[in-house]
Amino acid sequence: MTQPIAPEFIGKPQAEAVGAAPAAAAMPTPARIFQTFNAYQQTAAMQAAIELDVFTAIGDRQTTTEQIAERAGAAERGIRILCDYLTVMGFLTKNESHYGLAPDAAMFLDRRSPAYMGSAAHFLDAPEMLKAFDGLTAAVRKGGTVMGDEGTVGIENPIWVEFARSMAPMMMMPAEAISRMVEAGKGGKCRVLDIAAGHGLFGINIARHNPQAEIVALDWASVLEVAQENARKSGVESRYSTIAGSAFEVEFGAGYDLVLLTNFLHHFDPPTNEGLLRKVHAALAPGGRAVTLEFVPNDDRVTPPEAATFSMIMLGSTPHGDAYTFAELERMFSHAGFARSEHFRQPPLPESVIISYR
Amino acid sequence: MTQPIAPEFIGKPQAEAVGAAPAAAAMPTPARIFQTFNAYQQTAAMQAAIELDVFTAIGDRQTTTEQIAERAGAAERGIRILCDYLTVMGFLTKNESHYGLAPDAAMFLDRRSPAYMGSAAHFLDAPEMLKAFDGLTAAVRKGGTVMGDEGTVGIENPIWVEFARSMAPMMMMPAEAISRMVEAGKGGKCRVLDIAAGHGLFGINIARHNPQAEIVALDWASVLEVAQENARKSGVESRYSTIAGSAFEVEFGAGYDLVLLTNFLHHFDPPTNEGLLRKVHAALAPGGRAVTLEFVPNDDRVTPPEAATFSMIMLGSTPHGDAYTFAELERMFSHAGFARSEHFRQPPLPESVIISYR
Repeated sequence: MTQPIAPEFIGKPQAEAVGAAPAAAAMPTPARIFQTFNAYQQTAAMQAAIELDVFTAIGDRQTTTEQIAERAGAAERGIRILCDYLTVMGFLTKNESHYGLAPDAAMFLDRRSPAYMGSAAHFLDAPEMLKAFDGLTAAVRKGGTVMGDEGTVGIENPIWVEFARSMAPMMMMPAEAISRMVEAGKGGKCRVLDIAAGHGLFGINIARHNPQAEIVALDWASVLEVAQENARKSGVESRYSTIAGSAFEVEFGAGYDLVLLTNFLHHFDPPTNEGLLRKVHAALAPGGRAVTLEFVPNDDRVTPPEAATFSMIMLGSTPHGDAYTFAELERMFSHAGFARSEHFRQPPLPESVIISYR
Repeated sequence: MTQPIAPEFIGKPQAEAVGAAPAAAAMPTPARIFQTFNAYQQTAAMQAAIELDVFTAIGDRQTTTEQIAERAGAAERGIRILCDYLTVMGFLTKNESHYGLAPDAAMFLDRRSPAYMGSAAHFLDAPEMLKAFDGLTAAVRKGGTVMGDEGTVGIENPIWVEFARSMAPMMMMPAEAISRMVEAGKGGKCRVLDIAAGHGLFGINIARHNPQAEIVALDWASVLEVAQENARKSGVESRYSTIAGSAFEVEFGAGYDLVLLTNFLHHFDPPTNEGLLRKVHAALAPGGRAVTLEFVPNDDRVTPPEAATFSMIMLGSTPHGDAYTFAELERMFSHAGFARSEHFRQPPLPESVIISYR
């Protein structure tokens, strides 16, 4: 008595029904709307599972509700409902009373994996961010964030220290991709300015591949502490120096071979970016390049999904930020004096790399 | 320069790449995890679109960003980002600079549609509900809601007035299905007790189909005002009476042909439900039936998705509630003295109907 029946069979017990009418599936249904009304619970469930380290417990062969609950110090009822929910979402598997990790969860959510990125929830789901979206209707009306102090781009916003501490794992793959693209492994003299360095991973990765590379990291002083800590851990601290302050105010110096602009331009409007890019252009040595990591939607602005939906995060959390198309980015670089820009998508990663030549 | 390229092409401009390697798609990726970290934004975007009545504007042929923004009294930037986001989610279509309604949105989110259910967001995304899920980690630890006063099932919780006012549209289809299943259209003497009547739609619908049906609606007094208002609007008020109070405390009376238990049992644990069902059994006339509307997962508890994930709402908002399997419901009814129960799924609706015979 557990198979679906078609509407025309309503009034007969389920056992008598012989399969659902395919037409039923094509009718408009409220299912996806209902799912969207409840989508916030997906975020809450993921946060709870990360906080209780459920994925690590399962990876460590604690696979029953009882075992996971004991490891997590949680109630069995709570764990059963949470793990069933994560199974429906595809992050866990379930076989009788045993849960297992789906491939994405095993790679990125088991704390014992080198690619663990559960900490990213601390930044992406920070209380300030969730709060910004409580006021989304007002943000749509206004056309920008209703968070005070310019949203996340306000001066010395402490969220960037959280960013630097928690987002590094999510940036390992793009950092490695950028090092390959600029052929850091070939070595040779290379002065790198890493703007809004955050965790510092992008510059540090180049320094690890190229023993002659010298990195100058720019960010708020509080954030640079995290970058310097990471530079020490990677053994590149002797080639790592810093400039503390706002990228819009401090002097960059000159003669850089590479300037890194990773996840930075999306916070600001085009004229602000063009002003910054003129400074970047002036700081580059002949033959130098700006390397930009960005969420880049296609010209239709609704594909690919990860890049297209990124605009929503900028609407909720910044006054004027956006996910820019390549044409828009190319225009900003061109207005700032760059000769040409090239666009590289990097599937399966959601972000693109833009290389702009002085 | 806007097609995806495979990782092995990184380092060459996009124009040189010839299609993505299929292998890339099968690799574990953080894309779905990132999407889940941001899933709360789906709820926020849907709420904002409903509050600003964006779907109705588009249905009314205001299809450009400029037109929608003017109608909604909102900034063009806000509307553009919101509408692009809803397009990625599949609720809107986009053709050059014109947005359109996808079929689900046209049917259920355009205020001019008789099946409009945008108001359901007021209950499903009520601030109390969102707040309950801020504390989901604590709820998993405890095994029940961390909302005060027994969560949503606390005495006279005002959320049930909001429920009664906003959820009626979402219940039209199941109310119609139940009337058909009990063959209300055949007429004849029929006394109906509608437990936790809320908006009253289930009893009222039977009364509309059967001019001899007499409905007794039970709920908190504040909620019954909404049910009585709906009974008046449907012209069945002369056959509509009420019992105010808790279903666990008040006298039901006796001799009912039907007792309706719609979206009620999931709030409580099995012993509590069995106690209630004994009262229901005693209130039924010979040949009488209890009609239950519930989210019923299969025995694996992870299918079908809408029913399986409903447990999460009960974990977040009640001390002991759950989405029960048919075997569990059958056992409760059997313990309470019912002869047998039958289970009917009703695709595309997410909820099942259980008919239990005295």
